[in-house]
Amino acid sequence: MKKWLNSVLIFVASMVLAGSAASAQDASAPALEPIQPIEMPTDLDMPKVELGKKLFFDPRLSLSGWISCNSCHNLSMGGSDNLVSSIGHGWAQGPINAPTVLNSSYNLAQFWDGRALTLQDQAGGPIANPGEMASTHTLAVEVLNTIPGYVEEFSAAFGTVPIDISMVTDAIAEFERTLVTPDSRFDLWLKGDKNALTEQEIAGYELFKVTGCIGCHNGPAVGGNAYQKMGSFNRYETANLATGRIAVTGAQVDRLRFKVPVLRNVELTYPYFHDGQVRTLEAAVNTMVWVQLNRHFAEAGTAKIVAFLKSLTGSQPSFTLPQLPPSGPTTPAPQPFGP
Amino acid sequence: MKKWLNSVLIFVASMVLAGSAASAQDASAPALEPIQPIEMPTDLDMPKVELGKKLFFDPRLSLSGWISCNSCHNLSMGGSDNLVSSIGHGWAQGPINAPTVLNSSYNLAQFWDGRALTLQDQAGGPIANPGEMASTHTLAVEVLNTIPGYVEEFSAAFGTVPIDISMVTDAIAEFERTLVTPDSRFDLWLKGDKNALTEQEIAGYELFKVTGCIGCHNGPAVGGNAYQKMGSFNRYETANLATGRIAVTGAQVDRLRFKVPVLRNVELTYPYFHDGQVRTLEAAVNTMVWVQLNRHFAEAGTAKIVAFLKSLTGSQPSFTLPQLPPSGPTTPAPQPFGP
Repeated sequence: MKKWLNSVLIFVASMVLAGSAASAQDASAPALEPIQPIEMPTDLDMPKVELGKKLFFDPRLSLSGWISCNSCHNLSMGGSDNLVSSIGHGWAQGPINAPTVLNSSYNLAQFWDGRALTLQDQAGGPIANPGEMASTHTLAVEVLNTIPGYVEEFSAAFGTVPIDISMVTDAIAEFERTLVTPDSRFDLWLKGDKNALTEQEIAGYELFKVTGCIGCHNGPAVGGNAYQKMGSFNRYETANLATGRIAVTGAQVDRLRFKVPVLRNVELTYPYFHDGQVRTLEAAVNTMVWVQLNRHFAEAGTAKIVAFLKSLTGSQPSFTLPQLPPSGPTTPAPQPFGP
Repeated sequence: MKKWLNSVLIFVASMVLAGSAASAQDASAPALEPIQPIEMPTDLDMPKVELGKKLFFDPRLSLSGWISCNSCHNLSMGGSDNLVSSIGHGWAQGPINAPTVLNSSYNLAQFWDGRALTLQDQAGGPIANPGEMASTHTLAVEVLNTIPGYVEEFSAAFGTVPIDISMVTDAIAEFERTLVTPDSRFDLWLKGDKNALTEQEIAGYELFKVTGCIGCHNGPAVGGNAYQKMGSFNRYETANLATGRIAVTGAQVDRLRFKVPVLRNVELTYPYFHDGQVRTLEAAVNTMVWVQLNRHFAEAGTAKIVAFLKSLTGSQPSFTLPQLPPSGPTTPAPQPFGP
């Protein structure tokens, strides 16, 4: 069992036993906190990371030659596009808010309905989705195999060519594993720097736990490790048609159940919820405590929680903008407006 | 008079006097070459550069919140989008091929028809063009003035707020002045490193001069300093409707006269010509010598010129992907699909 899940269970048990959240206030015992510092992986395959970084920024993976992974998971903007729902090929309107790619390696599965079990599995989806990048795996691979710089780099990273789609998604996933945001002020506080948070932020964290937000938003990513019904207590009104995890399982119990979003960097990943209908953290907090927990906060309570949430903004990915190898003479031309 | 223009005149005079291009082969006298090494400016205003870099990558300057300067002048792809013509708001099809932003500070004016005299003047165009970023200067400035991080950074860089559009375009232009690509192999050769070029590349440069390409493509940017009719000798067939500089001057003599494009990094800035109809350097060279110079090359001649042109690829812009400040509570929401 994962260490952080152990910690959550110990924390819940300690709340039951002690009848309070007092133990969580003891910064000298961070192992008992239900949120743990988030850390960069140490087992990265760097040639694949560097290759995946280029692919993440390469619009030639789309039919138009204009949309890259970074178009909707913008690493200058919290790994999101800050839109209600994304824009795809031909200016198609996406059906759901694009989740941040930051810390997505900590998700139990990918997409709001968890239909991809791995980052690698996810990466293949948008490339071939007609409303997103609108290419096909066949075409994307043909494009890459006709770009001499890519052939060389794939050969070095994988030891073999021609390039196939599993190599493409493997490299993208390996790059995405680097998109972790450590060293937030909250994490510094968790690690023992008691001055890293203000009193209001600490009070917000306590309120986050006592109110029950922590029941779903826990672990190192402060979410991403469970599915929950949107509207557990009270109905969440939305015009959005997404049905949630039932689309994957077919089980009625999964209707409107979505993956709990990661709250790391939530200050940057507006607008909120699967329908992207809420623009401010204050409104998001108030909606959530009502529909999920049947509670109302006074303004001061909301402000405390928001202050805590903003302390979860970590070090953003920092790297040199990649340079993409030029197309070759036989590379299929982009088709933004049809053949 | 600019030093490089002097050099061009001296070069032309030397050709006339000597009846040959022999003097240009003497690498110990680089001052006589009609192309000069390109260099980074030394008088940069760094706070404006850093601010302009963020603005260049910020899609909130567009109505949709999705299109940034970098969308069509992609600094991972030679400062271009490698499309026949660009995609704009609502998937609008642009009327002309997007010129590279690299080394654009060396252009005598901006846009193919030179309708903007300065980089600052150019930067305001696409923001407010309904077929490009589709915002207005009023809206763009309102967006920026409601983003606390930008208000702080503009205040520091300009000493005053509120932000106005001239500050926005000034910062973008100052960043664009850094987008110079020095240290190409050709420049190293110009500076005296005789091993920097192959024999074929040197032969290509000689052919480039002797054939007359150098008449328009000269100076440090290898172009960008004159207008010329597309089809001086023989008609250039195209379905593109752009009329050229006549749109600015109203003078019949300017019909189909376009700014001579910069050839620095031309290997990266395909497809070619104002209509983007030519995908390979070989085809571009063959078309140009026919329509501009009434010549035909044998295959070996084309190959030499192309080899020379590829030696003009310089050091690409290298910087850390910027992080954009998050929107504030009153920042106008993007409107990708209408209000």
